[in-house]
Amino acid sequence: MGKGFVQEVTAMEDDFAQWYTDVVKKADLVDYSSVRGSMIIRPYGYAIWENIKNELDHRIKETGHENVYMPLFIPESMLQREKDHIEGFAPEVAWVTHGGDEELTERLCVRPTSEILFCEHYKNIIHSYRDLPKLYNQWANVVRWEKTTRPFLRTLEFLWQEGHTCHVDAEDAKEETTRMLNVYADLCENILAIPVLKGQKTEKEKFAGADFTYTIESLMHDGKALQSGTSHYLGDGFARAFGIQYSDQNGEQQFVHQTSWGLTTRIIGAMIMVHGDNRGLVIPPKIAPTQLMIVPIAQHKEGVLDFAYDLKEKLSSIARVGIDASDKKPGWKFNEYEMKGIPLRLEVGPKDIEKEQVVLVRRDTGEKVFIPLNELDTTITKLLAEIQNNLYRKAVKLREKRTSVALSFEEFEDKLENHGGFIKAMWCGETSCEEQIKEKTSATSRCIPFEQESLSDQCVCCGEKAKEMVYWAKAY
Amino acid sequence: MGKGFVQEVTAMEDDFAQWYTDVVKKADLVDYSSVRGSMIIRPYGYAIWENIKNELDHRIKETGHENVYMPLFIPESMLQREKDHIEGFAPEVAWVTHGGDEELTERLCVRPTSEILFCEHYKNIIHSYRDLPKLYNQWANVVRWEKTTRPFLRTLEFLWQEGHTCHVDAEDAKEETTRMLNVYADLCENILAIPVLKGQKTEKEKFAGADFTYTIESLMHDGKALQSGTSHYLGDGFARAFGIQYSDQNGEQQFVHQTSWGLTTRIIGAMIMVHGDNRGLVIPPKIAPTQLMIVPIAQHKEGVLDFAYDLKEKLSSIARVGIDASDKKPGWKFNEYEMKGIPLRLEVGPKDIEKEQVVLVRRDTGEKVFIPLNELDTTITKLLAEIQNNLYRKAVKLREKRTSVALSFEEFEDKLENHGGFIKAMWCGETSCEEQIKEKTSATSRCIPFEQESLSDQCVCCGEKAKEMVYWAKAY
Repeated sequence: MGKGFVQEVTAMEDDFAQWYTDVVKKADLVDYSSVRGSMIIRPYGYAIWENIKNELDHRIKETGHENVYMPLFIPESMLQREKDHIEGFAPEVAWVTHGGDEELTERLCVRPTSEILFCEHYKNIIHSYRDLPKLYNQWANVVRWEKTTRPFLRTLEFLWQEGHTCHVDAEDAKEETTRMLNVYADLCENILAIPVLKGQKTEKEKFAGADFTYTIESLMHDGKALQSGTSHYLGDGFARAFGIQYSDQNGEQQFVHQTSWGLTTRIIGAMIMVHGDNRGLVIPPKIAPTQLMIVPIAQHKEGVLDFAYDLKEKLSSIARVGIDASDKKPGWKFNEYEMKGIPLRLEVGPKDIEKEQVVLVRRDTGEKVFIPLNELDTTITKLLAEIQNNLYRKAVKLREKRTSVALSFEEFEDKLENHGGFIKAMWCGETSCEEQIKEKTSATSRCIPFEQESLSDQCVCCGEKAKEMVYWAKAY
Repeated sequence: MGKGFVQEVTAMEDDFAQWYTDVVKKADLVDYSSVRGSMIIRPYGYAIWENIKNELDHRIKETGHENVYMPLFIPESMLQREKDHIEGFAPEVAWVTHGGDEELTERLCVRPTSEILFCEHYKNIIHSYRDLPKLYNQWANVVRWEKTTRPFLRTLEFLWQEGHTCHVDAEDAKEETTRMLNVYADLCENILAIPVLKGQKTEKEKFAGADFTYTIESLMHDGKALQSGTSHYLGDGFARAFGIQYSDQNGEQQFVHQTSWGLTTRIIGAMIMVHGDNRGLVIPPKIAPTQLMIVPIAQHKEGVLDFAYDLKEKLSSIARVGIDASDKKPGWKFNEYEMKGIPLRLEVGPKDIEKEQVVLVRRDTGEKVFIPLNELDTTITKLLAEIQNNLYRKAVKLREKRTSVALSFEEFEDKLENHGGFIKAMWCGETSCEEQIKEKTSATSRCIPFEQESLSDQCVCCGEKAKEMVYWAKAY
């Protein structure tokens, strides 16, 4: 398949990290800038983000939320109000100390997340039970002062949405926490074709300031896990720190119960590492900026380009269609659009036109089929759905293949070393065991899954009485 | 019209600034935060911005541009590269000096605009004439350290889009500068119902680093002008400073010619001050988050609410419809949706249902009409179009009424004092005259309009030979 023209990427088996870096650069997703740890999201990368954003924004609005926009800066004194929260975030915030030529009397932190500002606002606008629930979301950039960064996966600045909600009681807030985790899972599984495990973070891994954190965890091609979205139940801790109270139906003052939840540009990193291969990106059709790329063959011959443009026009009602009529050789084009992970390629040349057919090539399987023109619409629709399903199925299979059970610590180490992926193992519930596992194996607890299994009654680390099953993995 | 319930705003004739502040607060567009000069854009305000954004983004993409995302921070040394640019922006940037606990070796400025970062990127990705034009845009937040701030009009942080493009030559770049000014004018006139004057900024008022700046200028209800969007031709100044070169068809190295153009959340301030009245906001139908609000009358009576919800369902295919079935009194609801500027109100009670009719009330004229149910669809569509046109016509009339010609300096002062609005007057082209006019009258040159008139041959200020006609006004 045009071997000679291949714009090569490092094979993922040889060096997965380098493969990733090659792909994000060669597929034109990002570029580096001279701002340390910050990336430029290029048109192709941003178009993917826009599609993810549209899908998610739609779901957020459908579940009754409204978008707002909060300030970028948070005064230092305000950040101090919730103790756990500031402790968690202080080491990784950027500080603004000067405006123009003047030194500020109070430092401003560039938001790492916006609980604080939402809380201040909620205190102003919530008075009565009639004001509840308040279901807000914002699309924004946030900054976390990371030491080591990688495009999409960990950057100094990233884009995300952050939901912040207030409820009359714990029950209502907990329902919301679950609802939004399910929205994230739906987005990942049905749009991005990324299977996820749903569960709760341990105390050690939960969000700074939360009562508990729900998470969806996915598995990358190299056997490492990636936290793909989190939904936090904040209890009334922030409400007490900020005095967010309402008068209930009996006229009594009550604290609200809150949630927050976020999904970031990181998910693009997951998409790359779940579906990509040694020829580059593989983008699930539902999220692909271009679902079908038309490559005219022998386009200098009379009628070919007209025919190709005509096809593009006709097919635009059933798919997002592109055409490359540049003077590059077809082999170059094939490689470029394989690198960019475009789900379907359509080739059409003089002979095809004569035979009233075209060639369709699937990015996921490489399969090549000749399709009569009068079957083209239905075939494209069918193939796009098949590709979407196939990517999901492949990802589920990979995860299954790379999920092991460990009943002893030796087994844990062995499975992690030889299989990678998720290790299911029982845990006593003590942070000390988590820490020991991390220290000895680099694996962290990914989640306490909602779907529990009873593998044994002993903690895989200390051998004491097990409390629950945990998924463990090395993680991004 | 429910006088007793009116949630009053200061009359605009009494105190326009206070009227504005009352309206933005009482229509729930914004809230203040404890971050000086930064505003919270509330759901209703943000929904308006989303509609504006969608309309503009569509136009930006249709004219061949692609969205990207650049970093928030710019290293100080990079900012120094273009002399005029840094001189213009340095006094109003926020500086990040610390990341976590560490002091940075180089300060980072929070972007006030992103020419610098786009230029650095363009240098990396542009090599050949085949790479041109590069037509990029980004939606982002920017920060300018303003002393005095007002919601939407002037805030420390604001939201905008900024286009940045590279072209093979001056001609192509100048065409782009004009094209995007026209896109802005189209958005303002046809969507926001705001008439604009198109023209060029004087040397004194142009963008720091530009060869020239095109602008659209609109007139507020109080007779002050508001710059509503700008499009800059940057020449090859940035290209030379950053070394953005390409090899042309003869293999020779050439500098690119660039443009940049931006439109901000400020335009919401314009919409408020062009269309609003003493009952609150008036939102043009094309941009209104809710175009028609259904208020059931005597909703406790059997069948009313069912009927109202049924109507909402049916009308949703022709308009963005809301319904208020809360237990507030109808009069309260009327006032609330008048304050929020919703173009049409639909009232329906038991008697209407019996007579198979509803009541429609226009926000712009207060006109109230009874409409048979079988004419409802066509009437709503017709009325929304009429309201949109009427708002535009009214704004044009206001501008005409408040545009004067001044042939002498005395006349200039007199007209400005007694009419406010735009003063058309001849100008010699010297900055000193601009400065004198500003000093003596507080009016600034708004633009040198593309549609020139020859009012006299003398500069209105110095009496020397006039070069061109300028629109002058006090401005936001």
